[in-house]
Amino acid sequence: MKQKKVRPSKTRIEERISEISTFNLTPGQGTTRPTFSEPYIAASKYLFDIMEGLGLETGVTCHGNMIATWEGENNQPGILLGSHIDSVPHGGNYDGVTGVIAAIEAVQCLKKEGFKPLKPVHIIVFAEEEGTTFGHMLVGSKASLGQITQKKLASLKNKEGKSYLECAEKFQKIFGKPLFDYIRPEMTRAMLELHVEQSVVLEEKNFQVGIVTEIAGAQEYIISIKGLANHAGATPMKFRLDAVAGLGEAIVGIEKTITKHKSPLGVATVGSVSCFPGAANIIAGEASFSLDIRDVKKENLEILERNMLSKIGKIMDKRNLSLEINRTSSSIPIVLDEGIRSLLEEVAEDNNIPVLKMPSGAVHDSAEIARFIPTGMIFVPSKNGRSHCSEEYTNAEDITQGCTILKETIRKLSLDQIFK
Amino acid sequence: MKQKKVRPSKTRIEERISEISTFNLTPGQGTTRPTFSEPYIAASKYLFDIMEGLGLETGVTCHGNMIATWEGENNQPGILLGSHIDSVPHGGNYDGVTGVIAAIEAVQCLKKEGFKPLKPVHIIVFAEEEGTTFGHMLVGSKASLGQITQKKLASLKNKEGKSYLECAEKFQKIFGKPLFDYIRPEMTRAMLELHVEQSVVLEEKNFQVGIVTEIAGAQEYIISIKGLANHAGATPMKFRLDAVAGLGEAIVGIEKTITKHKSPLGVATVGSVSCFPGAANIIAGEASFSLDIRDVKKENLEILERNMLSKIGKIMDKRNLSLEINRTSSSIPIVLDEGIRSLLEEVAEDNNIPVLKMPSGAVHDSAEIARFIPTGMIFVPSKNGRSHCSEEYTNAEDITQGCTILKETIRKLSLDQIFK
Repeated sequence: MKQKKVRPSKTRIEERISEISTFNLTPGQGTTRPTFSEPYIAASKYLFDIMEGLGLETGVTCHGNMIATWEGENNQPGILLGSHIDSVPHGGNYDGVTGVIAAIEAVQCLKKEGFKPLKPVHIIVFAEEEGTTFGHMLVGSKASLGQITQKKLASLKNKEGKSYLECAEKFQKIFGKPLFDYIRPEMTRAMLELHVEQSVVLEEKNFQVGIVTEIAGAQEYIISIKGLANHAGATPMKFRLDAVAGLGEAIVGIEKTITKHKSPLGVATVGSVSCFPGAANIIAGEASFSLDIRDVKKENLEILERNMLSKIGKIMDKRNLSLEINRTSSSIPIVLDEGIRSLLEEVAEDNNIPVLKMPSGAVHDSAEIARFIPTGMIFVPSKNGRSHCSEEYTNAEDITQGCTILKETIRKLSLDQIFK
Repeated sequence: MKQKKVRPSKTRIEERISEISTFNLTPGQGTTRPTFSEPYIAASKYLFDIMEGLGLETGVTCHGNMIATWEGENNQPGILLGSHIDSVPHGGNYDGVTGVIAAIEAVQCLKKEGFKPLKPVHIIVFAEEEGTTFGHMLVGSKASLGQITQKKLASLKNKEGKSYLECAEKFQKIFGKPLFDYIRPEMTRAMLELHVEQSVVLEEKNFQVGIVTEIAGAQEYIISIKGLANHAGATPMKFRLDAVAGLGEAIVGIEKTITKHKSPLGVATVGSVSCFPGAANIIAGEASFSLDIRDVKKENLEILERNMLSKIGKIMDKRNLSLEINRTSSSIPIVLDEGIRSLLEEVAEDNNIPVLKMPSGAVHDSAEIARFIPTGMIFVPSKNGRSHCSEEYTNAEDITQGCTILKETIRKLSLDQIFK
């Protein structure tokens, strides 16, 4: 007898996202949930309780990723569902969290239907996707594939000076160990991530769901300028080696360079600035800023990177300021697996959900996983394209539509015998 | 019998400046001595001990200025000798301190000679000259003339959130009350301040001493920009309202405006920058910066101010960013008293010390006092023109020469019967 399909619950999705939003360091000023912080641990406990309630086997890997496994009839190859729950400072409630809640919802509905997967299904909550707690993006997903050394994890520090490794170990102690620490590509059939779009495209074109074709790569830097501190009143303009003047010209130069860049999805951002000693009546001797550049095409990103750094170098040379460039994070643009994309589109059509094929300007854990494992991403719209801010919002009805595609794709993948 | 003149002691000047430099919050990283801070109190105690040892009557005014009085035969009009001992963050050892030590040295030598002044001589150490502790320049000197209300003093806060008034009261409790709280112009003959030049002019022209003709005025602002925080990867360039991009263009615009400004002594500085939320992968929704503009001519400063603010306004309009401009400090350019200048030059000639007549690009307490009282300033060279930084240095021999002029001018002024 064929079991009736259970539709993902809009109400439950809405409630759970809202619950998680209460685990927040800065209530009333956007959501701040640094990786491994108190609210992060509280949110994790909330999620583990739900997932254990669904009968999943849970634990935390040595890299601080949360894993919940729904055993299949065979013990491999598995299907990964994943996203993250860390936030940028003063960010929103939907980035990452939506994907985690949608994955749980999909599993919960399949379970209710009495569905039995042949392959195991693993929900992974990757740690430190944003990179704003330990200064490095996508740490959990990279580490899960052995792409970051333990030494590097020990060197990444949060604001309190605690290392990533130390915090991940503490986090593991709270929740216990999972079935596996490393994702093994040969034992994995596919990865699926639902995420908010974080831009205006779906809204403008009036789609509830997008299927991601490719994910932008991002290079992040901390760039430091050194000049000479001096008196702001008594030092004539021509004698100055003003680090902040160099900073200003660099910001303008970066904007000019990205404007000339021919790739429509290339972007560049200076999101953080500071100077030293930082008083109104002192010419700053030092200044520093972050630079984040992105493109969906590898060759375009390389050109952009070269042009940016050359422009900044020329500005500082002209001003006799010294320059130090440190790359803090790097991810490569990636085209997502054709087979998974076709499957997602097929499922969408079966369920009468129109989808838009589109690139992702934002970087995701899926970009790292996709280097080794067939990966698909489902986008749902962001209201007014706002993200990484308190105004971030996605309609629960749209999430439910995306979740339906996610759920039905899990079903197909977890039964298929044709690959591997 | 004519008493032999006592020359100021180079060794003692050197030692005392060096002693005061040990009262410092940031040893090894320049001198940081915020107004009324622990090291400020320790330095004050050091100075009061010396001045009391010389038989001066000491105390702290209700505005936190230190006063030490050498009684004259008549009790008015008095002669003021003054400077300051607060420092900018990570500043130098000579700014302000040199003038205080030179004033004490001049009094000490005159006393040793057995000199008896007709007029009283008051050494004043003005509080919060720099404006980097409470965000407002020249507070002590302005307050001493009734140019700042008690209400304003209660509203100025330091980093710990303590008000200027509260801190000044505590400071007064430690050292007791002086002979007067307010400087009364009708009871004051003149003000003299020796100060380090903080620029390269004396060194380049090979003079040990300068006589200041006029002092630049300074306008200081905190300027805040508001845009819209958003995702640094997913938000296309054309949809951004990036506060840091506005900041960059403002810094460049300020530099262009000062370059076009026709006055050779006009300067403009952005010494402090910040943004919010300040993460590499978030387009900043807010940015702010300090703006300090100066000129020695009042009309030029007014033109400069108008042009600067108009330039910044146009940039933000074009970018659809909102703008908030707050003036935090203001001082007016001033031409120093002809009579006192002539007297200083005459004394220099009598003592065979060549002097350069020159304007001051830096602002000083003397600029406030000069609005009401005949005022003179003596400059001594700054090595390589460096100031407001740890490399700040002035040769003790040069200070001794300046101090000789100071001392002999005090003698003349404290005996003259021709004015007032």
